[in-house]
Amino acid sequence: MNKFEKATQYLQELDVDGWLIVCNEDSDVNSPFMLGVHSHARHYVYVDANGQHEVIAVQMEAPMIKKALEKKGINVNVQSYNSLSNLEAILARILTKSRIALNYGENVLEAESTAYADYLRAGDYIALQKLGPKTEFISAAPIIYKLRSVKSSEELKDLRNTCKATMELLVDIPSLVEVGMTENEVRANLEYEYMKIGKPAFPSIVATGPHSADPHHNTSSKKIEPGVLLIDTGLKIDEMCSDITWTYYVGKPTEEFEKAYFTLYESKKIANKYMIDGSPNYLPGLKCRESLAKDGYDHEKLFFHGLGHSLGFEAHDIGERMSWKVPKHFKLKENMVYTNEPGLYWEDKWGIRLEDDIIIGKEKCELVTQVPKDPLLI
Amino acid sequence: MNKFEKATQYLQELDVDGWLIVCNEDSDVNSPFMLGVHSHARHYVYVDANGQHEVIAVQMEAPMIKKALEKKGINVNVQSYNSLSNLEAILARILTKSRIALNYGENVLEAESTAYADYLRAGDYIALQKLGPKTEFISAAPIIYKLRSVKSSEELKDLRNTCKATMELLVDIPSLVEVGMTENEVRANLEYEYMKIGKPAFPSIVATGPHSADPHHNTSSKKIEPGVLLIDTGLKIDEMCSDITWTYYVGKPTEEFEKAYFTLYESKKIANKYMIDGSPNYLPGLKCRESLAKDGYDHEKLFFHGLGHSLGFEAHDIGERMSWKVPKHFKLKENMVYTNEPGLYWEDKWGIRLEDDIIIGKEKCELVTQVPKDPLLI
Repeated sequence: MNKFEKATQYLQELDVDGWLIVCNEDSDVNSPFMLGVHSHARHYVYVDANGQHEVIAVQMEAPMIKKALEKKGINVNVQSYNSLSNLEAILARILTKSRIALNYGENVLEAESTAYADYLRAGDYIALQKLGPKTEFISAAPIIYKLRSVKSSEELKDLRNTCKATMELLVDIPSLVEVGMTENEVRANLEYEYMKIGKPAFPSIVATGPHSADPHHNTSSKKIEPGVLLIDTGLKIDEMCSDITWTYYVGKPTEEFEKAYFTLYESKKIANKYMIDGSPNYLPGLKCRESLAKDGYDHEKLFFHGLGHSLGFEAHDIGERMSWKVPKHFKLKENMVYTNEPGLYWEDKWGIRLEDDIIIGKEKCELVTQVPKDPLLI
Repeated sequence: MNKFEKATQYLQELDVDGWLIVCNEDSDVNSPFMLGVHSHARHYVYVDANGQHEVIAVQMEAPMIKKALEKKGINVNVQSYNSLSNLEAILARILTKSRIALNYGENVLEAESTAYADYLRAGDYIALQKLGPKTEFISAAPIIYKLRSVKSSEELKDLRNTCKATMELLVDIPSLVEVGMTENEVRANLEYEYMKIGKPAFPSIVATGPHSADPHHNTSSKKIEPGVLLIDTGLKIDEMCSDITWTYYVGKPTEEFEKAYFTLYESKKIANKYMIDGSPNYLPGLKCRESLAKDGYDHEKLFFHGLGHSLGFEAHDIGERMSWKVPKHFKLKENMVYTNEPGLYWEDKWGIRLEDDIIIGKEKCELVTQVPKDPLLI
């Protein structure tokens, strides 16, 4: 079943007439997910419960979308609009249906939210409400969740492929990095390789020395110095992203660093045991933290982020994150994909993070990537 | 005046208590615009009319934001939240103010819209309305427009710098491209150079042969073939993006191509004359089209996009686009920055686009970039 067929089935289950995706300047990743192509100008993807799918795009992008869908053998009526009033008329026709799903999240500030479905912008929402005053709008969260949280065998194949390619490049980092090179140059070298076979899944983090203490450091023009070198990076080849963090050491590692590395490595291994079908999302993080605490690390102070997140078409994909703070009824399912990425950070000093990509298994998880047991030295 | 001081002044003029930017997974570019750093997790930037500015971010990103603001000498209280209920409490306190500006667009499907301010997601909007039932929310469009549409002298300096660097690389394309290389490889080579000095402003379009007929072609693994090679690309070094399209020819150009190139080049030059302060946005495009028509090109069929768009912190920046279809009262202002990018496309055959970046001047425009008068051959 292609994605449109799957979505159609979910629409019927929800008793909804259609799913309308509004996308403008890449505002909704569900558009490229469905279409197989990135369209930048304002466009609409309408997935119809009866299979009368439509795309409404500008003239300069419609042929490209048409070709992408034809290539996948998906039957969609791709039409172009040449003015906003023309667009309004087409949308008004679609909005004569009684129940339409839109990509907005509910209770986004609550623990039990569907914030993951919140793509539609407020102004667009208001405009659609005005155009279809009698239409009942519901959140498309259940559709998005079903389409994207548990991965298909093709997606898992893509994942293994992109992860393998990423690891092959990360192993080579020591031969690529020299003291005096900037963080930007290291990133450029790595992403250059990505772009030849795919594209960066997100802007890589290259953090030297104290920069490694900021988990989301913005790669800069600072020169690589002796000490910690943290690289958090991901590649996207076909449909799936990798997201991997390796922490290297430039020069001879201190005992302090080595101890942190080995302890973190072991704590991550323990977490893996709980990354199985039916396991609650909070458990792997809790077990990891117990292990860190046992080894004398104040995890509440030093490890101030979740253990991992769902991975897929986007680096941060659909599905509840994995953290000891997640309510207990959220559970992992077979063939979900998660990162496992504990870290320890000493503000303004240095930090360390080890991140692998993992497929949740029935009895045990599949380690799609594996950080080195011993830190790679540069 | 720094950006926070400017924004404060606009808030006072609008008689608004504050401006709240909600950003999650890079959903609102006004956050990095104000902070000078990209924060990825859910965070809030609150610009206060009385100067009591706040940022609310997760613990893993707060120190990084703090450092970025300190570096710019901007005084903002950066606090971190450790749970959603904690976040809600902080937001509820801010929402006790009576009038708050939010980044949503009004009348986004009308010609007279403020769609450019539409960043806030519907679910977030609903959540804020719930948290501040007595708060009056207004669109932040006037603030965003004032902050970002007319560029400062520092921004124009950044623009000239990034444009110069981009052109130096585009001149070298013929020595870099070989028949048999893929579009992805060409893009990788170009963006590799970008990443050493800045970053790609957007994913470059590299379109060989018939791919050039799709103005927004997604760069692919297709091998470069003899014929048209269209490259639409941009670099961001500091605050400003370049956005340039050069159309090359692999091999000996056909007469048809040469005629199109020269005609398009001349039509673009004519449009430049009208890119001055006070000129209506529709005029440069109209003049360009008149010139194309005079030379025998059916511009309505072959040139099916606007002439240009505002350029700045983003490749598609704030300000009405430049197109013969824009209502007549929209006017260009001195120190706005626009692209001038006419194109001609023959579906499934080939296309050509020539794009320069231009500063609107008092008496005449400044050509910050210049496409070659004769097509570069590969």
